[in-house]
Parts: sequence; structure tokens; C-alpha cells
Amino acid sequence: MNHKPALVFQTDFGYKETSVSAMYGVIKNVDSDLELIEASHELPQFDIWSASYRLFQQMRFWPQGTIFVSVVDPGVGTSRRACVALTENGYYIVTPDNGSLTHVLRHHGIRQVRQIDETINRLHNAGTDETAVFHGRDLFGYCAARLGAGIITYEEVGPEYPVSEIVTFDIPEPEETENGYIGIIEIDDTNFGNLFTNIPTKGLLKKCPYGSLVHVTVREKGELRFSEDVRFDLTFGKVNPGDPIVYNNEQMKAGLAVSVGSFVKKYGIGFGPDWTVEINTI
Amino acid sequence: MNHKPALVFQTDFGYKETSVSAMYGVIKNVDSDLELIEASHELPQFDIWSASYRLFQQMRFWPQGTIFVSVVDPGVGTSRRACVALTENGYYIVTPDNGSLTHVLRHHGIRQVRQIDETINRLHNAGTDETAVFHGRDLFGYCAARLGAGIITYEEVGPEYPVSEIVTFDIPEPEETENGYIGIIEIDDTNFGNLFTNIPTKGLLKKCPYGSLVHVTVREKGELRFSEDVRFDLTFGKVNPGDPIVYNNEQMKAGLAVSVGSFVKKYGIGFGPDWTVEINTI
Amino acid sequence: MNHKPALVFQTDFGYKETSVSAMYGVIKNVDSDLELIEASHELPQFDIWSASYRLFQQMRFWPQGTIFVSVVDPGVGTSRRACVALTENGYYIVTPDNGSLTHVLRHHGIRQVRQIDETINRLHNAGTDETAVFHGRDLFGYCAARLGAGIITYEEVGPEYPVSEIVTFDIPEPEETENGYIGIIEIDDTNFGNLFTNIPTKGLLKKCPYGSLVHVTVREKGELRFSEDVRFDLTFGKVNPGDPIVYNNEQMKAGLAVSVGSFVKKYGIGFGPDWTVEINTI
Repeated sequence: MNHKPALVFQTDFGYKETSVSAMYGVIKNVDSDLELIEASHELPQFDIWSASYRLFQQMRFWPQGTIFVSVVDPGVGTSRRACVALTENGYYIVTPDNGSLTHVLRHHGIRQVRQIDETINRLHNAGTDETAVFHGRDLFGYCAARLGAGIITYEEVGPEYPVSEIVTFDIPEPEETENGYIGIIEIDDTNFGNLFTNIPTKGLLKKCPYGSLVHVTVREKGELRFSEDVRFDLTFGKVNPGDPIVYNNEQMKAGLAVSVGSFVKKYGIGFGPDWTVEINTI
Repeated sequence: MNHKPALVFQTDFGYKETSVSAMYGVIKNVDSDLELIEASHELPQFDIWSASYRLFQQMRFWPQGTIFVSVVDPGVGTSRRACVALTENGYYIVTPDNGSLTHVLRHHGIRQVRQIDETINRLHNAGTDETAVFHGRDLFGYCAARLGAGIITYEEVGPEYPVSEIVTFDIPEPEETENGYIGIIEIDDTNFGNLFTNIPTKGLLKKCPYGSLVHVTVREKGELRFSEDVRFDLTFGKVNPGDPIVYNNEQMKAGLAVSVGSFVKKYGIGFGPDWTVEINTI
Repeated sequence: MNHKPALVFQTDFGYKETSVSAMYGVIKNVDSDLELIEASHELPQFDIWSASYRLFQQMRFWPQGTIFVSVVDPGVGTSRRACVALTENGYYIVTPDNGSLTHVLRHHGIRQVRQIDETINRLHNAGTDETAVFHGRDLFGYCAARLGAGIITYEEVGPEYPVSEIVTFDIPEPEETENGYIGIIEIDDTNFGNLFTNIPTKGLLKKCPYGSLVHVTVREKGELRFSEDVRFDLTFGKVNPGDPIVYNNEQMKAGLAVSVGSFVKKYGIGFGPDWTVEINTI
């Protein structure tokens, strides 16, 4: 039986070469008992918004104490901090402090954050004769392994700094209007081409029951991209294949989908704070 | 040592977001000792034929007692049953009963099938304040975890129903003719672009030895797509790079390949019951 | 606690079907305790150069005794040997002897090599009634499992043969010139579109410090593909997004990158012995 916490990884390294393997090897050298779980190594490159959202999205399903290692790091080598955050709900996140903690801080809260002490918790000369720049392997992976193996306590990660200093970006909040909600498209459900808004299903249900038609308007930087009446219902099977639907996603937010199809591909819609969405009763 | 059965997953979720991680997290919350094996999370979307064939194709290589979790579920939220099948050769399959069991039922047989009792073996309110629709995580994954962990016996999955009620689609059988066989192209070997027919190699060998030329004809819904003399042999090295070959695949069926190339791409051929193939002696 | 060595896999099988699962199933049938790590199942098809480089690139980060299983095997079924190499630095590599050992032999050295005795260490009739051709599963995977499980010793893999008989291809060495170096582009960093040359960073640093401009020339089979002045520096943040940079990669070699972009895509550059590169002081 393995009572050490699992290490859950999300990166933009891809699966086509051996960065992931080198990182895992360093970790197994620290402690071969550590279990390595791949959340995704195919996050969109350099996309901190996705890293932040994906951390928040998956975290609460895992056992408390799980250590998440998130490496989407366009600023590697700049002065951004490397940190380990301890969330209010009891998870560890090893990550560059570059905005990747935004959604978790907003939705779950962060109890403490510590800057990784690179004199102790960074691997130097990993198989080479000099230090090279691969922070996923030598810094984030190595530090996570030491924490997961119990070689260091959380306090020994490095010096604490104020949670208020964590780098974040702005997340627009949904607004309730007379006839519905204005929000943003927060993220996509990549494989299926669904889109997740930040509009709460419960709020929408107070205005219209499942089975209603609602009017959905999507704009990119203010420019109209989609404007249609769409059925609001519990399951995709309630509309014909190829037709759009507003449904309740697993975040209890309104999602946009096409039954047995891709909303993203059919309508060319993206995500992030530039993409606003209105859902109104009709 | 881990004497619990492995959980082997095949889904169409993809690796680009965190559905897989959320599902795994729920499972690790049930029992952190369970080993999670990824057969594939890149099955063609909504393609029940592929789900059915891939289950059959991989199953017999695993230790008896292994639990397969198959989630290709275009009818999620409709009245299709969620079930756990026990095969004649001693494996468990947790899946929507939507045709995904067809090839296993045909080729290995199913001893018992039980509908998952959602009052007990479905996770409600997983990290949210209300039930949302993600059956891979809350129903199939959760139930498989409880079975694998030994929290429930197979009998406690839910009520048994007749094997004859399992949803299946028609699988055309190969027919022996005077000069060869007529069959279908059952599936592709995706990465290499090979195609698997359902024509038995042993039968073909009674008509012509390895090293012979045979005539291969492929039709899609009756329309001619390929008609050539092709070498029938044991190994790809027997033809020049770029040339087609009929070979004995790991199912002991005739396969169509291009040496150091892709039959699928070179000739634009697909798979499924619409694609018929004739192999004749010449 | 698991004191058996991990099995680390690199193949060109892809993740879209069940070859990987069948191979893993055979291994788990030998010993369900063996830990299976995916370095990559998305190596470029039939590309032995990549297989060879990737083995070398990842190996030294793993604990000694780790067993690497490399299956990029365009010559499956021909007379190429199936072997297990023991490297000078204490790793096992289970692989077709088809050039895949070239970089490891050159850079780490190989202590012993043994041809797999197929009468003992090949699985016959795996779930079928006759032997079919899937060496990844029945030969390389099965033999690696028996070695990892301790069922056979390294000596029992099969008969030793001279290290000098290992199949290798030529790897051009970098040459120091008056103003810099001439080398090749050894490999790409696939996901990010960076390129790795074989030119040593330390040598380059003797000619020009970080922060200098250097002139980079790339040719494919002698034909000019790239010729620009590029900044040579430690971190990508030192140039503007979209601009090229020469940096020190994790092999302590000169790498070519585009900050927050892809050198490969922006300039259409590939890798392998046909691609030469010059880096000169200016």
C-alpha cells in the first residue's frame, strides 16, 4: 500500500519526446515509490490561462494532500518566482508563480505560498557537468518529489511570502441582468468541442426551467460571433444531432455544445476573457 | 505487492484537458492503491464500433480479473443502461450498454451482465453542490473503483439482466468462396495505417501459401475503392518500401499494409461494416 | 514498496489503438507489480535516428537498473537481432538491434549485449492459437517483463555477442573552426519547435560570452536554409517574443529557438545528419 501522495502533472511538454521521461526519471531517483499521474502534457503552449483553469477544474476530485505539478512557463529564466502553494482545501501546487494560481486562489483560496529554495530543492548538475535550464525537471519536478517523498516538510520548501503577492490576472465575474446573464467563455472541453461559460446554472434555472429556449449571444472583443435561440436542457439527447444546446456542465455552469458534434468547430468560437457570452430568456 | 486488479481505461476524452484527471481523482479517492492503465483516451469520438472492437482486441492479453472501463457514450443522459459485464473468460467491463459489448459478446462470450445501481454505485455531489452529468467520472469510474477496491462484490454492482438484452450491432461474417474470401475491413491499425480484415489467415493459407500473389478488392457501400494484385506474406520486409502486402495480423486475420508506409493514407480506405473486402487466389 | 526496476517505454505505436495495452497486458501477466512508464509512444514512425537519440537523451536521469524498452522497428520480421544491451552506466535496453543503440553506445558506452533467446523469452500463442507477428508485445515486452520481474537474470536473456557487432549509423562530430563551430542539428524539441545542435556550449562560450550576437547558418544537404545574426544567451526572455535565440540546452549543447514560438515552424528546419549548422562569432 502506498500512503505517499500522488504527483499529478500538467504541462505543455507534449508526448513526442523525452522531456516528460527525464522529469519522471529525476523524480524516481528521489523516491521510486512515488506514483506519477498524467493529468495532461498537452495543455496549449505558453497558455497560463489554461494552466490556471485546468488546475482549478481537476483539483477537488483528488484526495487531499495530492501534489499537483503545473509547468506552463513562458517566463522560464526570468525573475518569476518558483513556488509551492498550499490551498485552503488541502492540496499542494508546485508551479511557476506566473498567473497559474489565479483560478485556484479565486475559487478555493490559498492558505500559504512558499518560494522554492533553489540552494536545497533544485537539482544541480543532473546528469550533466553543468546546470542547464530545464526547470520542469530540475526545479518543479525535483522539489515536488522531495515533498511527496517526505524528505522535506512543506515548511522546508523555502521562505513563505504573502498570498497577496501571488501573480494573478483578472477574471471577469458573471453579471445577472433582467433577462439572464452576461459572462465569459471560460474554457473549452477540448476533445468534444464544448465551451464552458462562467454563468451559474442555478441562477439560470431561476429564470427558465430545463426544456426552455434561451437566446445565446457570443462576442469576441465586442464583435458578434454567434446569436441563436438554443434549447437549455439536461442532456445532449434532448436535441437532434448537429443542433446546439445549453447544458449544465460538471462545474454547475452553463455549457455550450453541439449534440454529437463540436460547438467550437461548427461556430468557430474560442475562450478566455476576450470572449463574452449572454444567455437571455425569450 | 498489489493484488487488486488493474483498471484499464479506453475513452474518447483526449489528453488535452482534465476529464481524465477528474475521473482518476475520484477513483483514487475511493482507493489510492488502485493502478490506472491507459489503453487509449483517443478513440474516435462517439465511435461505438471502435470501442467494441478495441475492447475485444486488447482484453485477452491481460490477467483474468482485470477491470476494463470503456466510455464512448454518445447517448449519455438517454435511457441506455450503464452496466458491468462479466465475460466468459473472466474479465469485467464497465461501460454504457450501447453496442460497446458487441465484439466481446460475439468472440469471447458474456457470462453475466448487471445494471449499475445508481443509488449506491454512483458518486453524487462530487466536489460540487449538485449532481452534474459526467458519467465517466461519477458513474463508470466510481463504480469500477468500488469493484476494484473490493468495496462491493460483482453481485453488488446492481441487478442482473439477461445477456440477450445487451445492445449489439450486426457484425458481418466472412464468407468462403470458390477462389478466396469475402469479408469486411474490421478496423485500422491507426498509427501505421494498416487495415485489419475479418478474413481468417488459416483459411487463406489453405488456398495459397505465403509468398503467393492474391487479388485484393475493396469496396465502400459497393463502390470500388481498391483492386490490385498483392503479395501475401509473413513479414513486411518481403515487399519493397511503398508496396502493399497482405499479412497475418495479430488476430490471425488477413491485414492490408504498405511496407514502411500507410495503406490507409496511400489508398484512402476506411473501416466498418460498409467496407467490404475480397481476397482471391490468382 | 516496489524495489523492482521500472520499465520505461518508447515506441512509435501511438495512443489511438490498443497495441500499447496488449503489450502492457502481457507484461502484467508476467508480473502485476511491474511499473510501466510511458516515455513516448509518439516517436516519428520508423525513425531509428529519433529512437537512438531519445534513448540517449532520457536515460541518465533514471535510477540505475531501469529497463528501457524501445520499439521502433521498420525491419520487424527481417534478420535484425532482438537484443538486450547493458550500458556502461548500468541501464538495460530491450530493443531491435537496428541502429537504435547508436547514440547510447557513442555517448555512454555499452558493456554487454545479448541476443534474446526466442525459445525461452518470447511469448508464443499469446491469446491466439498460433504465433503472430507483434514483437513489441511478444518479444520485447515479454522479455523485458521477465528480466524486470527477476524471473531471468541478464545472462539468461540469451547468448552474448560482441559489442562491436551492434548495428550503428554514422554520427557526424562537431568541428571547431577559427570563428566558431560546424555541426549538425541532432534533434528537435518537438512540442516547442526548438532544435538541438551537437555544438558544445562550453566551446562556444570560449569564443563569445552570453549576450553576444553570433551568425547562424543552416543547410540541408548543402542547400542554404537559414542565415541570420542571432543572440546567444541563457534564457529566452532575453529576446523579444518571435525572435530567434541560440541558447544552452539541457544537453549543454547550443539550441536554436524562437522566444514564445517555434523555430521549426517559423523557418522550416528539420534534423538529422543531412542538416548541418554553423555558428560563428561576428
